[in-house]
This record gives sequence, structure tokens and C-alpha cells, in this order.
Amino acid sequence: MSMKYLSQRVAQIIDEELMSQAGGFSIDQLMELAGFSVAQAVAKVYSKESYSRILVCCGPGNNGGDGLVAARHLSHFGYRPSIFYPKQSKKDLFQRLATQCNNLKIPFVNELNKQLLNNTDLVLDAIFGFSFSGEIRTPFGEVIQTLKETNVPIASVDIPSAWDVEKGNIDGRSFIPTMLISLTAPKMGAQQFKGIHYLGGRFVTPELDRKFELNLPPYPGIEQVVDITNLTNERL
Amino acid sequence: MSMKYLSQRVAQIIDEELMSQAGGFSIDQLMELAGFSVAQAVAKVYSKESYSRILVCCGPGNNGGDGLVAARHLSHFGYRPSIFYPKQSKKDLFQRLATQCNNLKIPFVNELNKQLLNNTDLVLDAIFGFSFSGEIRTPFGEVIQTLKETNVPIASVDIPSAWDVEKGNIDGRSFIPTMLISLTAPKMGAQQFKGIHYLGGRFVTPELDRKFELNLPPYPGIEQVVDITNLTNERL
Repeated sequence: MSMKYLSQRVAQIIDEELMSQAGGFSIDQLMELAGFSVAQAVAKVYSKESYSRILVCCGPGNNGGDGLVAARHLSHFGYRPSIFYPKQSKKDLFQRLATQCNNLKIPFVNELNKQLLNNTDLVLDAIFGFSFSGEIRTPFGEVIQTLKETNVPIASVDIPSAWDVEKGNIDGRSFIPTMLISLTAPKMGAQQFKGIHYLGGRFVTPELDRKFELNLPPYPGIEQVVDITNLTNERL
Repeated sequence: MSMKYLSQRVAQIIDEELMSQAGGFSIDQLMELAGFSVAQAVAKVYSKESYSRILVCCGPGNNGGDGLVAARHLSHFGYRPSIFYPKQSKKDLFQRLATQCNNLKIPFVNELNKQLLNNTDLVLDAIFGFSFSGEIRTPFGEVIQTLKETNVPIASVDIPSAWDVEKGNIDGRSFIPTMLISLTAPKMGAQQFKGIHYLGGRFVTPELDRKFELNLPPYPGIEQVVDITNLTNERL
């Protein structure tokens, strides 16, 4: 049985189930675990000696929240992250996550330009997640275009931003990241991704795995992430 | 400069500061990180091959909540925890943490007796934390007595239960654990503890460290815990 790639609808249902009364999770908890697993995966692939300067690009939704959590953990790990977060959510949780980053003196930058990218070792793309659909709103069209043109490696959270969650990088309108950290389970659009691929979200119960026939691979030891690069490419 | 051991009052002030508007953390987040670090520390010292059967003893407060989070992560790590939680909190967060354990089929046991301990490889003591003072309420007096008499190794969360947070194990009224996982910073009572000692809580900012003159040791790599056994014993 091979690992399942989720449709957008099933990804939303699983997310809702985790946070339902039956699942018991709060969004604070899940975002903490998701963001932590992103930071852990990044640190396993990109050493802080060579990739210290990480630019975390955050969108306005939950994917952006995962990015804020990851930025905080990366700072604790000894990286020097900075954050580009042009459409900041007014929700309490997101404001608190930004406060936590401020308290670590992580700089927030106002503009994503080539000069900034020249001083960046890695971009962490936390712009859009599994809820993305339709048009790319301002200012993210320009952001996606800039990321398309850069040679800086990019690690994407959950799904590369502006990819169709199910159909992938339609008409090549978005960039192809170097690394993808899928959360909970990979999305259908990630089937066409051939780079370094990690899975995070070690909170799925065996029951939930069975119910949705996820066939998730086992996580090693006490890790919050599992390398699924080979698993993914087997099926290509 | 040596690491600071906190008074009960300073421990409470730091906790309040972390969760204030200036600190930005929610209790869900901090408890998740604390409980995860406890599970990670336990896994580093007690292998799942030899210490699979972990009895997590949870008190009615936040220390018990850390225990519930740790039990969940230990289950994901491949241990077979069970939970003794005689005074269950009615607060929403605690009910949700218990639900999450239920969803992993972690058994809740109703009684702590010798037969149960005979089938236990390790006790995780999450009964009382840094807020403890005064008398030990029913049924925990009996629980402490049972843990005093057992030969099963005990790992305590933050401070060994029923120890005075500042003065330690007064009149030997409580047990001496094999391992202690201090959270945020060790408490004054832990100065007399000579066993395996880990520190968890990699969320303290450098600013907070300076403000309270904590002089926390650096955490290695991407770990959520640091072994302070030697640091602690140096000063004895």
C-alpha cells in the first residue's frame, strides 16, 4: 500500500477532524508542532554553517503561521532568520506568533527584492498552504515572480506556493522549490515534485491513518519528520 | 556565571511573563513544548526497548498537563505509556489533552498499586510542579507513599512531586527520583538533586535569560533538551 496524496477537500476534512471536539487539538498546538517539524526538516538538510540567513516568507493564513513558528525555532537553533510578512493577520494567535519572533529580535523586512535575496542562503516559503485556490492576490503575484527568478534554494511548507493543491504547478506559473515539507500527508499536487521531500506532523493517530487510508510511513526514533524523498520518487 | 536556580516566586513571574501580551505564548503552546521536551529527555535516557511501559502519573494542574502531552509524544515514539490521572481537570485544555491520549488508545488506570508497578518499567511523575506548596491533598499522599516504596525508576517533571520547590525533600517526606527534567530553569529545591538532570523549554529568549540572570546553558543542535547532570553536580 503506497502513501496517499490528499485532495484539497480531504486535507481540509482531516484538519477539521484534528481540531474538532473528537480530535481535541487546538490550532495553537497543531501550528506549534507543524512549524517545529518544518524547522527540524530544514535543519536536517541545510546546515546553519552554510545556510544561516533564512528568509521566511509568510502568507496571511495558517501556512504563514507555520512559517512564523518555524522562524522562531530556527532562531533558537542558531540560524539567523528574517521574516517577510506583507499581509499580517489580525487574529490573536498570529499577532502572538509575531510577538514571539520580535522578542527574539528576528528582523521583519518590508520588501522582497534582489538585493535581499543576494544576502539570503535559503528561502522558506510559507505563503500559501492547502487552502489556496483561484487567483494570486497582491502583493503575492510579484513575490512569486521574484521567487521564480532567484537561484537561492527554496524550501516550501506543505505545498509550493501558488501551485494548485491537486494539479501542481499549472502552466509553470510558480517556482519549483528545492525542498518540500509536506504536513500531515502530502497533497496531490506534490506528486509532480521531484526534489528533497520531508513529511512532518507526527500527531496523526493510527485510527485517523486507517480512516483516511493515509498509509503514512513510520517516523524514525524521536524525530518529528521523516524523509520521504525516495518514497515519493518511487512512484514517478 | 553559573546557572540560576529559581525561587517559587521568580518561577511564577517568568511563567506569567511568557504568557503575558509581551511574551505572546499561549498555555497550549508552552505546554506542548514543555511536554514534548519531557518526552524527548525520557527517550534519550530510557530506551523504548528496555523501558517501554511508562506509567505517567498526572496531577490536577499544569504539571499534569505536561505529563499528558509527554504521554502522547511517548506513544508516537513507540513506547507503551499508560496514565494515572485521579483528579482530572475540568478545564477545556486538559480535557482536550486527555482526548488526544484516548485517541491514541493510551489506557487510563484507576489505581496506583504494587501490581501495576510490577508491570511498569518507568514512572513519569507529573503530579505537582512549581506551584506546589502546603499539604498534599488526597489521594496524592498515598500516591507519594507508594512511589517512595517502589524500586521502579522515576523521572520527575520540573520538580520531584511533594518536594518543597525551594527547600527540596523536607524530612524525606517524598521520593527521590532517578531523573529530573527541569523546565525553563531549575528550581532551588533541585539543588539537592544528584541524579540524571535534563533541562527543557527551549523557548526562553536571550532577553529573558538576561533579565532574570538565568545563565541557561546552550541547547545542542536542534534538541529541545540539554543534559545538565554535570553542570548541576559541579556545584554540590
